[in-house]
Amino acid sequence: MEVKGWSRVPCSIFLFFLVAGFQLSEQARPLSAAKPDPKDAAASARWLVAQNSWGVLNTISSELGGAPFGNVVSFSDGLPNEGKGIPYFYLTPLDPTAKNAVKDPRASFTVSEYPIGTCGKRDPMNPTCAKITLTGALKLVNPKSEEAEYAKIALFSKHPEMKGWPKDHDFQVYKLEIKNIFLINWFGGPKPLTVEQYLHPKLNKFDFIR
Amino acid sequence: MEVKGWSRVPCSIFLFFLVAGFQLSEQARPLSAAKPDPKDAAASARWLVAQNSWGVLNTISSELGGAPFGNVVSFSDGLPNEGKGIPYFYLTPLDPTAKNAVKDPRASFTVSEYPIGTCGKRDPMNPTCAKITLTGALKLVNPKSEEAEYAKIALFSKHPEMKGWPKDHDFQVYKLEIKNIFLINWFGGPKPLTVEQYLHPKLNKFDFIR
Repeated sequence: MEVKGWSRVPCSIFLFFLVAGFQLSEQARPLSAAKPDPKDAAASARWLVAQNSWGVLNTISSELGGAPFGNVVSFSDGLPNEGKGIPYFYLTPLDPTAKNAVKDPRASFTVSEYPIGTCGKRDPMNPTCAKITLTGALKLVNPKSEEAEYAKIALFSKHPEMKGWPKDHDFQVYKLEIKNIFLINWFGGPKPLTVEQYLHPKLNKFDFIR
Repeated sequence: MEVKGWSRVPCSIFLFFLVAGFQLSEQARPLSAAKPDPKDAAASARWLVAQNSWGVLNTISSELGGAPFGNVVSFSDGLPNEGKGIPYFYLTPLDPTAKNAVKDPRASFTVSEYPIGTCGKRDPMNPTCAKITLTGALKLVNPKSEEAEYAKIALFSKHPEMKGWPKDHDFQVYKLEIKNIFLINWFGGPKPLTVEQYLHPKLNKFDFIR
């Protein structure tokens, strides 16, 4: 009898809960959603950047005789699942990285697929465990610009703690102006990928963005 | 009656299973063992390096006009729980990092506490979620030396996959000769820590090594 009763419930109700449940589970684990086909270099690169919350930002150290200085930083390239590919950072001049960038803006930003959790048992250096290095210029975003407002929303949505960071540390929004992309996500060396292709990938809703 | 029965089992049996169970659980998650007191900068730094399996190795890019180039790499500073603080890498000249180091050995190596899993809900950039950057020179280790043999054992024990990497890629052991240490593991800016203190910390078996 009960089975019969269920059969009277419209199919759309089941679909609603199926979709709602799926969306909730995606929100619960935003760092493991929808890995694209590695053959699609642009989608793969954008996914790698969008799904990560931290990476290593490299500058030329003015204090250490021009040595390359990597620093662990949090970042965001947009609202969750709406990343635009450009990494924004929230840096204080008390930290060497922002100071270095003022003197020499040359910089790179590196993230790995490993902390996303989708590399399984493969080594972090296995070429199928993707990694990306964006090289370019680290620039202060004009604090009064719309871009700074957007970047703060993007940063604070992924890093709520940032909103409460000490005012007297003078945190400001910086971004990496990307000039070169080094992506390894499969065997056979770095994937050819231009900045244009990276910034404007052919979006495939089901492969790439949810 | 059953309770009475249990009470006859010697206490040492319980202790044995307690210790054995603890050790097994430690083996199962070797990346979260025995975090030292953050006040002990040397122990904290060594723990951070010993517990991590990958990081970002930064060199000066000869191909990209001298830009700082960060690259995701696997590494090891020794056998598990016997780390000596010096990071060893297994690099191929097909990769830009080894090529860069030949032209300019200036380098840094950066790791974060975040992937170890001991930062809890704190942001990767929260100063109490530790990070370290070792700056110095990236050098090829003489392939015929005892050091290269030791480094290979250290690398392969943490990265078993490396043993099977393609012979024709000419992987070689490199190490970072450390000249400067940038450690943040608490509020108040970088912790003063000399290379000497880092390489020869006052070992406390229960705080630091298991």
